[in-house]
Amino acid sequence: VPVSWIKPGTTIISCSRDLNMVKNTERWIQSQQYRKWDLRCLKLQLLSPVPSDIEISRAQSPKAVDVLAKEIGLLTDEVEIYGQTKAKVRLSLLERLKDQPDGKYVLVAGITPTPLGEGKSTVTIGLVQALTAHLNINSFACLRQPSQGPTFGVKGGAAGGGYAQVIPMEEFNLHLTGDIHAITAANNLLAAAIDARILHENTQSDKALYNRLVPVVNGVRGFSAIQLARLRRLGISKTDPGTLTEEEINKFARLDIDPSTITWQRVVDTNDRFLRKITVGQANTEKGFVRQAQFDIAVASEIMAILALTTSLQDMKERLGKMVVANDKKGEPVTAEDLGVTGALAVLMKDAIKPTLMQTLEGTPVFVHAGPFANIAHGNSSVLADKIALKLVGEKGFVVTEAGFGADIGMEKFFNIKCRASGLVPSVVVLVATVRALKMHGGGPNVTAGAPLKKEYTEENLQLVADGCCNLQKQIQITQLFGVPVVVALNVFKTDSPAEIDLVCKIAKQSGAFDAVPCNHWSAGGRGAVKLAQAVERAANQKNSFKYLYSLELPIVEKIRIIAQKVYGAQDIELSPTAQSQVDRYTRQGFGNLPICMAKTHLSLSHQPERKGVPTGFILPISDVRASIGAGFIYPLVGTMSTMPGLPTRPCFYDIDLDPITEQVKGLF
Amino acid sequence: VPVSWIKPGTTIISCSRDLNMVKNTERWIQSQQYRKWDLRCLKLQLLSPVPSDIEISRAQSPKAVDVLAKEIGLLTDEVEIYGQTKAKVRLSLLERLKDQPDGKYVLVAGITPTPLGEGKSTVTIGLVQALTAHLNINSFACLRQPSQGPTFGVKGGAAGGGYAQVIPMEEFNLHLTGDIHAITAANNLLAAAIDARILHENTQSDKALYNRLVPVVNGVRGFSAIQLARLRRLGISKTDPGTLTEEEINKFARLDIDPSTITWQRVVDTNDRFLRKITVGQANTEKGFVRQAQFDIAVASEIMAILALTTSLQDMKERLGKMVVANDKKGEPVTAEDLGVTGALAVLMKDAIKPTLMQTLEGTPVFVHAGPFANIAHGNSSVLADKIALKLVGEKGFVVTEAGFGADIGMEKFFNIKCRASGLVPSVVVLVATVRALKMHGGGPNVTAGAPLKKEYTEENLQLVADGCCNLQKQIQITQLFGVPVVVALNVFKTDSPAEIDLVCKIAKQSGAFDAVPCNHWSAGGRGAVKLAQAVERAANQKNSFKYLYSLELPIVEKIRIIAQKVYGAQDIELSPTAQSQVDRYTRQGFGNLPICMAKTHLSLSHQPERKGVPTGFILPISDVRASIGAGFIYPLVGTMSTMPGLPTRPCFYDIDLDPITEQVKGLF
Repeated sequence: VPVSWIKPGTTIISCSRDLNMVKNTERWIQSQQYRKWDLRCLKLQLLSPVPSDIEISRAQSPKAVDVLAKEIGLLTDEVEIYGQTKAKVRLSLLERLKDQPDGKYVLVAGITPTPLGEGKSTVTIGLVQALTAHLNINSFACLRQPSQGPTFGVKGGAAGGGYAQVIPMEEFNLHLTGDIHAITAANNLLAAAIDARILHENTQSDKALYNRLVPVVNGVRGFSAIQLARLRRLGISKTDPGTLTEEEINKFARLDIDPSTITWQRVVDTNDRFLRKITVGQANTEKGFVRQAQFDIAVASEIMAILALTTSLQDMKERLGKMVVANDKKGEPVTAEDLGVTGALAVLMKDAIKPTLMQTLEGTPVFVHAGPFANIAHGNSSVLADKIALKLVGEKGFVVTEAGFGADIGMEKFFNIKCRASGLVPSVVVLVATVRALKMHGGGPNVTAGAPLKKEYTEENLQLVADGCCNLQKQIQITQLFGVPVVVALNVFKTDSPAEIDLVCKIAKQSGAFDAVPCNHWSAGGRGAVKLAQAVERAANQKNSFKYLYSLELPIVEKIRIIAQKVYGAQDIELSPTAQSQVDRYTRQGFGNLPICMAKTHLSLSHQPERKGVPTGFILPISDVRASIGAGFIYPLVGTMSTMPGLPTRPCFYDIDLDPITEQVKGLF
Repeated sequence: VPVSWIKPGTTIISCSRDLNMVKNTERWIQSQQYRKWDLRCLKLQLLSPVPSDIEISRAQSPKAVDVLAKEIGLLTDEVEIYGQTKAKVRLSLLERLKDQPDGKYVLVAGITPTPLGEGKSTVTIGLVQALTAHLNINSFACLRQPSQGPTFGVKGGAAGGGYAQVIPMEEFNLHLTGDIHAITAANNLLAAAIDARILHENTQSDKALYNRLVPVVNGVRGFSAIQLARLRRLGISKTDPGTLTEEEINKFARLDIDPSTITWQRVVDTNDRFLRKITVGQANTEKGFVRQAQFDIAVASEIMAILALTTSLQDMKERLGKMVVANDKKGEPVTAEDLGVTGALAVLMKDAIKPTLMQTLEGTPVFVHAGPFANIAHGNSSVLADKIALKLVGEKGFVVTEAGFGADIGMEKFFNIKCRASGLVPSVVVLVATVRALKMHGGGPNVTAGAPLKKEYTEENLQLVADGCCNLQKQIQITQLFGVPVVVALNVFKTDSPAEIDLVCKIAKQSGAFDAVPCNHWSAGGRGAVKLAQAVERAANQKNSFKYLYSLELPIVEKIRIIAQKVYGAQDIELSPTAQSQVDRYTRQGFGNLPICMAKTHLSLSHQPERKGVPTGFILPISDVRASIGAGFIYPLVGTMSTMPGLPTRPCFYDIDLDPITEQVKGLF
């Protein structure tokens, strides 16, 4: 058994330097009874002013990851070490601990953010630092792996910030354990297979095609396993290649893809705007089969969504095979399985499916798994990381997971898509707000990445805050639609005045929040989030009447309308003719019973980024509808959504450097 | 000290099951005196017929890589473990062992191959298995990481084969430790930066551009370090952004790239033929700045060449900054450094620079580092892996490294480019030949991947062999141009007759080879290559008068002509007008003193793949000349060379599968 019951009177290890708080904490802990880890926390040396993220990260010596793994109850053969500070955790643990009760499940979501982000990752990390390093409660943070696009583009890294970070932050922000690279490789192998297949079908007779697809090898001719599976789907029960009729050969050998219906795009994990719309196949060797295509950012790949939603290797392989990449000329879906590539995709993803273990600045455990971009993807961390963490923390422990952007975006998808896939029931939602974003919603001037903040944001302005709390109130109401208690975490900036902070907390509680707590983890680490942790602990013991927002049996359009009206506050939706015909097609193809993953701007509750606060009276335009059958959702596009960010005039990379002597990374933030 | 002197009479650990051979071997070893590792070899259970590569790999249990690392004298903090069977080795070892003498340095090259390959990797691995597991001599194999393109395309993996393999072969053939992914990320970040910069320059005034490049941050405006470096290159010594004149602002802010001169291409590690020629920038957001571009296979990236040729982190960073991506409108080179991206590229490559340690089937050490494709790249394993291995094996040990394709291609580049970069002097060349390839050179029918072999190749045919030995003789002569002794390794196939084998060995010796030895490592592991190992050991003690083929001071065209005439046997060369103007440009830009990296088909000594044997009387057409300034070579293209392979009708991936229960990979070969 990896964990043991705490005995009353046991000395509590705490990292807090505040003696009074230590004593209060010990008393509080001793009133509880729960299984606890024997975990060595790392002490923080808090500096003021707060140094840069990379300086803070570098000043802390992380524990060896195998030590951390042992502390949280992992067995040696359940861990694959990657360097000193990262490890992949094997899924076999789920079988070993299947009878252990799950811990409490906390989701961190946010209000509608400014383009700078409001600190959900920072709150997530601060919260687990508080829970484990200060309250001695087992806890795990489950974060998403950042895309290298924003890391080198505008936004920078995503390992948290200040004294609430995952360390080493440069490992977190760079290649990590290669999951996104694996997704890119798998995604692009499938893309190459589609175009190559169309070319080969268009330039060969049925017989030539069949002879190449089913060649004689060492004098023997046989179907491969994946070809036999295709034959069965086609209703052909033969297994001897020599016995197929001409018609059967034609059915088997021709996927007959209609190039105009290809929805599978290539990806790179780079902000490469010139790949947003391209023409491929212009070399002579491709014999004129040019077509228009695009690259998306890698984290928008359906394979990333599958990684986040899958529950096992078997399930992942099935999902990869079911991915629909196009229609054939009869309008029937063509899948990765039809292209013969399922096994290869699974092989490329066999390590990516294992969550990566890292640690916070205070030495508490973190899983990093799956990817961001909740606007154009579902943007949640992985089901598998959450499930494994829930077993590891034990019944009284906490798993804090994160959904991207505002609660209208990431959280809605968390509940309706991710919780459906996992079957897990969340205990509490932490809704992150900042005075800065609230002022913007109250009518403050534009907030732009890279430009200095206007004085409205650096000086007290209670009116802007009060006016902007409408967005907070709306996001609380959205959370309540799902029947889960909500704690508001006000991520305090040094320019926030006490009156502003009090005002936000008051309005939040009036708006139905279970509690509202200012948090100072950025400047004080876990100690600055102890009150949040205690509020979350109390909220987790509340009655919970979790429910989904819509029934899967409803028609696709009806499900979209429910999200638009109940969550976004739209008056109605309006489908373009393309969108309508896609809905009809997917319904006819039998995909009508999937949940909905909206692609919508994160900068407004509506589809118009400039409409802050709580927009009303708008008609939500659905410009197109796609389907991610492997991931298991229908994907409506609201207005124009770019799936490939661009580099600005002066990207982050101007500040990034490597010291060739010390091997230290500079300028990552 | 990681190694100790062997004492006469010490019991020798040997993996051979043949008792007579063990006794002979022990006697032979005791006549030697050298430093040896205390290395536990893995026993082979040889089966007949030889099972598939993946079955053999899976049947062997590799040692934990940290155990192997300790056995060969690595300190704990010099090793970064990646899972159970792979580790990266830190470059700090070179400093620690700088006073230790190097081992012997052996290059494995080949005759002009068939499209199926003649087994250079297999010979390399068989040779080190023989040296270390059977002759108890310290040895290291240095191999190249395979591209995932061929792994899922036509060729399959590259971990050796039969009983001479790197294990686990699926780890070797898949993501390994992510080096190629890191190269792809770095390459494509630079590509995105080029196009985005052109767009931003074309759509902004000097002032707007300058204000964005040098923004006010927290009230302060300053140049970043890389911008200050650019100012210095422009002869501007100012450091206060407010003091630049309008003319200086213009010079600083505008790279003024001429889009028609861009030589930097995007890459993917996938055989995606539809990306051979594309048009980018067709989305409205790119405002009409469309241009024609292409993707290359990732291993053809200049960054891969830099990884192979670099000698330290500092050197790598300098090379990355020096990469020329285009010319400006005045015809001057524009570099990665000008784009401000040097530091970011170095950060992306900081782990890739460390060689990856793995092991052979018999438990002897292998480094995997840098990439293949000696036709369109230089295609050699890395200088750093070789240098580290040479220290680890010690003075009497052997490092066996590999150069791609025929000796005319990979070996010529090894000597003239890689040895120049490293300063290392090779002791012996092992030239791999097969009866199959010799028969092809003697006039046998075409050999095509995927098609069954004709009977000429499966039945004895001494005439074809004798006629084809002209190619072997020519490749021996090429090797002798460099003054290094050559041992011919005949990689024996089960269809080769004893008379054929004897004939090849006889002709090889008559043609100037120091020795010629049939090898059976494929069916017998290291034991099958003991005679080769002994021949190599003897050859390494021969007089060695290594020399480069040409002086760097010669004009570019003269250097190309020397390679064409002396190595390929061309009558002369002929430059296209484009090639000539590029030569003139590079000479004018001061790049005339670099070595030459020819891009030429590997299927013939000439530029025409169908001309087997020893073609003569041909004029080598140089269609274009490019420059890889960071890697440090001029890159002439001979005829039409594709830098992006394609997928065939039935790619390898049809056979590749993952068992979701056992997690075992199937169908990789």
